[in-house]
Amino acid sequence: MARVMNFSAGPAALPLPALEQAQAELLDYRGSGMSIMEQSHRGKEYDAVHEEAIALLRELLAIPGTHDVLFLQGGASQQFAQVPMNLLPRGGKAAYVLSGAWGEKAFAEAKSVAAMLGGEAFVSATSGTGEGKEKQYASAPLELNDAGASYTHLTSNETIHGVQYAQPPGADFPAAQAPLVCDMSSDFLWKPVDVSRFGAIYAGAQKNIGPSGVLVLILRKDLVAGGRKEIPKIFQYRTHAEANSLYNTPPTFGIYLMRNVLQWAKGQGGLAALERTNRAKAAAVYRAIDASGGFYRCPVAPAFRSAMNVVFRLGSEALEEQFVAEAKKAGMVGLKGHRALGGVRASLYNAVPLAWAEALASFMGSFAKARG
Amino acid sequence: MARVMNFSAGPAALPLPALEQAQAELLDYRGSGMSIMEQSHRGKEYDAVHEEAIALLRELLAIPGTHDVLFLQGGASQQFAQVPMNLLPRGGKAAYVLSGAWGEKAFAEAKSVAAMLGGEAFVSATSGTGEGKEKQYASAPLELNDAGASYTHLTSNETIHGVQYAQPPGADFPAAQAPLVCDMSSDFLWKPVDVSRFGAIYAGAQKNIGPSGVLVLILRKDLVAGGRKEIPKIFQYRTHAEANSLYNTPPTFGIYLMRNVLQWAKGQGGLAALERTNRAKAAAVYRAIDASGGFYRCPVAPAFRSAMNVVFRLGSEALEEQFVAEAKKAGMVGLKGHRALGGVRASLYNAVPLAWAEALASFMGSFAKARG
Repeated sequence: MARVMNFSAGPAALPLPALEQAQAELLDYRGSGMSIMEQSHRGKEYDAVHEEAIALLRELLAIPGTHDVLFLQGGASQQFAQVPMNLLPRGGKAAYVLSGAWGEKAFAEAKSVAAMLGGEAFVSATSGTGEGKEKQYASAPLELNDAGASYTHLTSNETIHGVQYAQPPGADFPAAQAPLVCDMSSDFLWKPVDVSRFGAIYAGAQKNIGPSGVLVLILRKDLVAGGRKEIPKIFQYRTHAEANSLYNTPPTFGIYLMRNVLQWAKGQGGLAALERTNRAKAAAVYRAIDASGGFYRCPVAPAFRSAMNVVFRLGSEALEEQFVAEAKKAGMVGLKGHRALGGVRASLYNAVPLAWAEALASFMGSFAKARG
Repeated sequence: MARVMNFSAGPAALPLPALEQAQAELLDYRGSGMSIMEQSHRGKEYDAVHEEAIALLRELLAIPGTHDVLFLQGGASQQFAQVPMNLLPRGGKAAYVLSGAWGEKAFAEAKSVAAMLGGEAFVSATSGTGEGKEKQYASAPLELNDAGASYTHLTSNETIHGVQYAQPPGADFPAAQAPLVCDMSSDFLWKPVDVSRFGAIYAGAQKNIGPSGVLVLILRKDLVAGGRKEIPKIFQYRTHAEANSLYNTPPTFGIYLMRNVLQWAKGQGGLAALERTNRAKAAAVYRAIDASGGFYRCPVAPAFRSAMNVVFRLGSEALEEQFVAEAKKAGMVGLKGHRALGGVRASLYNAVPLAWAEALASFMGSFAKARG
């Protein structure tokens, strides 16, 4: 089997050892005579997987005892609604910081929840310029207004626009009063983060830590306890916190696969080691852009260039199509930019090895040279 | 590998060929150089899987063009809230038919939604007797009152209580005016059903058709169109209908595995063939109960005995524990009753072969004889 170099934005490449382990034990999980998929979610085999996944997240991210770790379904898109349903009290306010398309979606859902349940969602700060199809995000706001807000929501890495906070965004807002609620879907578990700075962190698994269908929510316990009670039980964070994410049947195979990925991440040396590799990968690709004499252009301001999603343009759409097609012939896939923006996007999540990023950078050099 | 006889209530046994296929192509899906889990949900490989899963459901159940087929997350427990959020208009009424614990949960969430959004949920009919720990369900209501209701919700098979409608419940309510909304989680795809009789059918995959983390919703198009709009976009059925269940990243591996199971079901000869086998399986186990001279007792009235979840008691809890322990030694697992009820429960979903049901019946005979 020739493994292709997969630069997809998510679902994305997974570490080969995590997949090989799943393959080896797919029909018989540890001598149980059945697949992990066929185990009861209340049985001891699955329970050990569930607990280990939580423990590995706690260990890798040094999650303090002040925060719960929950596994939910519906992805970040469901959290866009579930966060305000829980954390925006009737008559309260929620502040939204916009640095790309995902933050916009989160804000739109918060407005809908505010209208439904009573309350207000407002834009605390935005780095967006232009309107409609011309709308651009080339940076992320460093100042914000959270006056009166119950929480401030932000997106620490915008997967589509390739805009990322260089520091954990908590550190960028020393004056923030309201708890920070952060969509870290494409920014999760690739470098150390000070979790104590956040009221909540949530992340869909399908970028850095597993297959689609699993969402990790790290939530301060006082926010769990203080959350709204007059919403359906299934949407209350306390329901899942009290049941250790076993209130209803969780996506057991997805959590199992995530556990395999977390074991692999630990085996790589943890987040500090992963960060070194990830920074080297991003540096290689951005160097290829900057060294191209304008053949490749990254629309994002240098301080906000994403280490996870490198977005760039070529001279024309036709040239971009050619780039993606020739890269595919060279064994590199998933490079087409998001349909909303066009262009090229290389996602460099944990499971993408340095060699792939270097191969891409080298290909970019050759492609530019042949046409430059 | 010795495959155990898995009688779990869900997650449950899956057809071995569906798992073997997943294992064979787990690292390299059809020569793509990556796992199906690593494919973009907007790429052509995953898209073909997605479309095939929908087409197989349409074919197996003969789903008419009047109904959409959606894949959602959060299981039936999320539908307990999402159904009234969509289908109970402000100031409207929703009728609930109760025949076990799951219907009760659905009703509780509907009341919560009604209180949150304006509206009313009422018990149209119940077969429950007693209160608290003594609460029992030994049958399902055949008459109902749906006056003024926007829909009538029922649970066609109660997984915990082992109570099932013998006929498609639509046929039991010839006078029903309101659209029937049916939780078919443990009753799905094991026999033919006249889908046109239902406004909506929903089912968690982890019983008869796949791993946990995928929910199938079959919904009449006029109900999609008429659903409430003042709820978050992610919870509106129209959002997912308009995007063909690709509004946000679906649980791609779960849908892939479900596709494999649906291929297997078709290969078995479709639902009529599966029904014959399933009826034979249930008959074997109920015969062992009825032939035991009272050693085993099924609390469910004969006309409502579930073909999917056979619930029975022995003379004492100690004897029940011994039964479960000895069955395990004989290679039969997942027989412990639900923690809310105790006793023994044998789930006989599609992937449980007739030979397992016969082995269980034979074991029951021997166990009773040794202690009778």
